[in-house]
Amino acid sequence: MSAADQERIMQLVKRILPDGQGINKDELEYLTEKLKNITPSPSEGEKPKKAKKSKLVLKNAKGTIDQGPAEMAIREELFDKIKAVFKTHGAETIDTPVFELTDILTNKYGEDSKLIYNVAKPEGSDESLSLRYDLTVPFARFVAQNKIQSIKRYHIAKVYRRDQPYMTKGRYREFYQCDFDIAGSNYAPMFPDAECVKIATEIIDSLDIANSRIKLNDRRILDGIFSACGCPDNLFRAACAEVDKLDKLPWTAPENEVSVRCGLSEECADKIGRFVQKSGAQELVKELLADPVLSANKSATEGLKEMSVFLEYLEAWNIMDKVSFDLSLARGLDYYTGVIYEIVMTPSEQDIKNAEAGTTVGVGSVAAGGRYDGLVGSLVGGKGKSNVPCVGISFGVERLYTLLKRKKEASSIRTTATQVFVMSGQKNMLKHRAAILNDLWEAGIPAETSYKPNPKLLNDLQSCESRNIPWGIVFGEREIEEGIVLLRSIISRDEEKVTRSDLVKVLKEKLAV
Amino acid sequence: MSAADQERIMQLVKRILPDGQGINKDELEYLTEKLKNITPSPSEGEKPKKAKKSKLVLKNAKGTIDQGPAEMAIREELFDKIKAVFKTHGAETIDTPVFELTDILTNKYGEDSKLIYNVAKPEGSDESLSLRYDLTVPFARFVAQNKIQSIKRYHIAKVYRRDQPYMTKGRYREFYQCDFDIAGSNYAPMFPDAECVKIATEIIDSLDIANSRIKLNDRRILDGIFSACGCPDNLFRAACAEVDKLDKLPWTAPENEVSVRCGLSEECADKIGRFVQKSGAQELVKELLADPVLSANKSATEGLKEMSVFLEYLEAWNIMDKVSFDLSLARGLDYYTGVIYEIVMTPSEQDIKNAEAGTTVGVGSVAAGGRYDGLVGSLVGGKGKSNVPCVGISFGVERLYTLLKRKKEASSIRTTATQVFVMSGQKNMLKHRAAILNDLWEAGIPAETSYKPNPKLLNDLQSCESRNIPWGIVFGEREIEEGIVLLRSIISRDEEKVTRSDLVKVLKEKLAV
Repeated sequence: MSAADQERIMQLVKRILPDGQGINKDELEYLTEKLKNITPSPSEGEKPKKAKKSKLVLKNAKGTIDQGPAEMAIREELFDKIKAVFKTHGAETIDTPVFELTDILTNKYGEDSKLIYNVAKPEGSDESLSLRYDLTVPFARFVAQNKIQSIKRYHIAKVYRRDQPYMTKGRYREFYQCDFDIAGSNYAPMFPDAECVKIATEIIDSLDIANSRIKLNDRRILDGIFSACGCPDNLFRAACAEVDKLDKLPWTAPENEVSVRCGLSEECADKIGRFVQKSGAQELVKELLADPVLSANKSATEGLKEMSVFLEYLEAWNIMDKVSFDLSLARGLDYYTGVIYEIVMTPSEQDIKNAEAGTTVGVGSVAAGGRYDGLVGSLVGGKGKSNVPCVGISFGVERLYTLLKRKKEASSIRTTATQVFVMSGQKNMLKHRAAILNDLWEAGIPAETSYKPNPKLLNDLQSCESRNIPWGIVFGEREIEEGIVLLRSIISRDEEKVTRSDLVKVLKEKLAV
Repeated sequence: MSAADQERIMQLVKRILPDGQGINKDELEYLTEKLKNITPSPSEGEKPKKAKKSKLVLKNAKGTIDQGPAEMAIREELFDKIKAVFKTHGAETIDTPVFELTDILTNKYGEDSKLIYNVAKPEGSDESLSLRYDLTVPFARFVAQNKIQSIKRYHIAKVYRRDQPYMTKGRYREFYQCDFDIAGSNYAPMFPDAECVKIATEIIDSLDIANSRIKLNDRRILDGIFSACGCPDNLFRAACAEVDKLDKLPWTAPENEVSVRCGLSEECADKIGRFVQKSGAQELVKELLADPVLSANKSATEGLKEMSVFLEYLEAWNIMDKVSFDLSLARGLDYYTGVIYEIVMTPSEQDIKNAEAGTTVGVGSVAAGGRYDGLVGSLVGGKGKSNVPCVGISFGVERLYTLLKRKKEASSIRTTATQVFVMSGQKNMLKHRAAILNDLWEAGIPAETSYKPNPKLLNDLQSCESRNIPWGIVFGEREIEEGIVLLRSIISRDEEKVTRSDLVKVLKEKLAV
C-alpha cells in the first residue's frame, strides 16, 4: 500500500470516527475498495480453517417454492388452457434468457426497480446481468434487437422480484407470467387492444373458476385530466400513483389529504378527485367528451375517442357485462402510453364465507396490461421508423392456480399417464414383467410395474386403485405356459384372458389410442 | 456509532497502515460490515447524478440466445416427444426454483463448481443464492427436504453454467436439460438402471434423426481396476479424470505419458491402460470376472455381477445392438456410485461429408447419467434410513435440437395453430371481420384476420399460402346481405358458399375438431 493510500485512509477514518456520518459516497467506495484488496493475515493462534461439518439446512430460497407432482398436474392443466386460447388467436411463442443485461431493465419499473435480482459479477467479467422482472421488457428487447416489424406472440415463463413474500396469498419471489402481446404499425386503432381484453374473458371462461370484472382506462385520459385540472407536469406521476392507491386509500382520507401526500394544490386535488371516482361505459365517454374542462384537452379527447372505439369492439363481442371504463385505474409501470386494463376476480359466496372466518379471500388482480407504444423505440434510441407500437396482457397465474386447485378434489388429480400396471402374485417374475412392459412401451401405452423384486399382488392392486390406474395385467406360471395374461379392470374387478400376441391390440382398443 | 465501535475501528486501521497486511479475516469482515452501515453524506459541491444518455447496446447476455417462433416450434416438438416417452414410463413431473441456497450446490460438481452463477447478495439479505447447475442436485434436495421415499419423476428446465460458450456447437451458458430419475429403496437391482437406458433408446428412436451408441460402465468396476492395479486411493479421482479424456488424449501419448500427467507409477498406469481400452458385452464381463487381478477385488466383482444383470435386461429389450460395456467411460461428476452411461450420436453419411467440407459434425454426447446412491443421504447428513438411492438420465437437448432442425425444411415449420384467415376485398369491413372471428374464437377454432383497417385481399391470400393456413373466409357487401361467406381452400383455391349460421359447424367438420 502506498504512502498516499495510507494518508488518505487515515484521513477518512478520522472523519468517520466522530459521528459515523462525515464521509461521502466516493470516499466510502474508495475505502471499501482498498479494504477488498487487503489479504488478511491469520490471527495469532488461528489455525487454517477446516471445512466445518455443519448440518446443511434443506430449504428453498426465501419466497420460492417447489412444485410437487399434484401441483404440477394442476399447473399444466392451467397452462394448457391458457395456451389454447392464445393459439386460437393465432399467436406464436418465443423464449428469451432468464437474465438480461442490466442496462436493458433500467428505468422501466419506477420505484419497483429496487426489487430486481442482480447476478453476481465474477472477477474478469465485463457484463452486469439481472434476472428478468417481467416478460414485457425482454419482449421489447427481442423485437428491437431483431428488427421485427410485426409479431403476435405469447410467452409463459418465470419472472423474479425480490419483494416481501406473502406465501399464503400467492406472492412469491419467483412466479410465472403468461403474456400475450401484439406488435405492429398501422393497425386498426383499438382492435388489437380489444383482442387482449377478449382473450382475458376467454381464459377466465375456459377455467370456469370465478367471476371477473375488467377495468379499463387510458393513460392519455388520465394525463388529460391531470393537465386540465391544473396539475403541474412534474407531479403527473405522483398524482398517478395516488390514483393507483384509490382502492386502499380514499382520495380524501381524513387528516391525510391527497394534496398533502403528493404536493398538489387543494383545488387541483379536489378537481382530479371528482373525475377519478367515476366509472361507466359509453355514456361516461360522452359525458367526459362534453365536459367543458376536459374537452379542451387534446390528450384527453384523443383517449376518449379511442375508448369509444374500444368499447364498440367489446360490445360487438358481447363482453360489456364484464367490463367497466373506470377512471380510477392507473397501473404503476412507466411504459404505458394508451389504454390500460386490469382483470379482477370477484369473490364467490364461498370466498366471502372464508373471509368472514378469517381465511384469505381468493380475489384480486389476475391479469393486467395495456398499450406501450414507446418501449421498443426507447430501446433503439428513437421514436422514428424503428419504433414498433405494442399492446399486451400479462396473466399472473398464482392466484388462478389457487382457485383451480381449490376446485379440484385431491383424489381426482392424476399425476401420471399410466394406464396399465403389470403384476404377478408369484415370485421371480421380474423378467416376465419386464418383457410384457417392453411390448406396451414400444406401443406407446403408458405402463409400469413395481420396482420390487417380489412385490405382493394385493399391494399392487391397492396401488392401482389409489392411483386411478384403470387396467392391471396379472399372470403367473400357468399363464406363461398357456401364453396368456389376465387383463383386469381395476374398477369392475372383472378379468378376461388375453393371449400375449393380442395384448397390445386389445389394450389399444380399450384405451382408444 | 458507539464509542466501543470507534475504538475498535481505530485500532484496526492503525494496524492496516504500516503494511496493509496486519489485519486478520475476522477483523477485515468487522470493518467492512461497519462501513456498510454508514450512510455517506454528499461531497461538497456534488450534484445529484444525472442519468447519462448513452446508447443502449441491444444484445443477449454472453452465451445465451433468444428462441424465435420457428425455433420454438421445433423445440416444442422435441420436448413433446421426450415427454411422451417419460409419461409412457409412468413418470410424474415436478418443478424447483431456478436458484438454490448456495450451500446445497457446494461440493457436487468437482472442478466445474467454478462455473456456477451466483446471485448478488443485496444489503440486509442473509441468503447466498446460486443458479442451478443441473437438475439432479435440486431433485435430491427436493427428495430429502420432503422426506420422499420413492418417486419417478421427469423435469424439463433450464440450467446455468458460466462455461466458455461455443455457440455454433450448441454450448450455451443457459440451456435445457430433460431429466428422468427413479428414487427408491429395495428395488430389484439394475431394473430401474436398465429402464433409464431403455428410455434413451426410445427417445432417440422416436426422434428418428440419427443413430446412436450407448456406452455403459460402472464406477465400482473402475474403482476396482484402479485399486487392483495398485493406484493409491488419493489418485482414484485423477486416474478417473484421465480415463474420461481417453477419447481426446490417448493413454500413452508420446512424450505425455499418463503416469507423468497424474502422478501414477508407470507400472500402475500401464496396468490400468490395458483394462480401460477394452469394450464388449457379456463376454467381457466373463473375461474380467475370470481375471486373476480383478476377481480378488470386491468392488470390481460386485460391479461386474450387476453389469451382467444390467445387460440381461437390455438383451431382453432387444437393444444390445446399440450398447457396449466400455471400460473407458468415466463421467466427471462427483456423485455417481454405480452404473454410468452415455448416449453418443454417431455421424451419418451427410455428417461425414459436412465434416470433410469443414463444417461441424453433429455428433457427440446427447444424454448421460448413472446411479447416485449417496446424494440424498449426503444432504440429510447420513447414509442411514433417511438415504434414498437414485438412478437417472439427463438429456442435453441442444444437440438433438440442431439435428431435428436440420431435418426439417424451413417451409414446413408452422409457428401458429391458425386454421382460418378472415378477409374481405372491400373497405371498412373490420367490424364484420371481428364479428366472424368472434364466432370462430368462441368455438375454439384458431383464426386470425389482418390488423390493418383495409388490407388488400391479394396480400391476405398470399400470407395464407406462405404461412400454410389451410382455410380462408372471404366476403363483401353482397355476401353480408345474403347472410353467407365464401369458404376458400387455400391449397385448391376452390370456394363454396356457406351460410353464416352454418359456418362453425362446417369448419369443425373440415378441421375435425
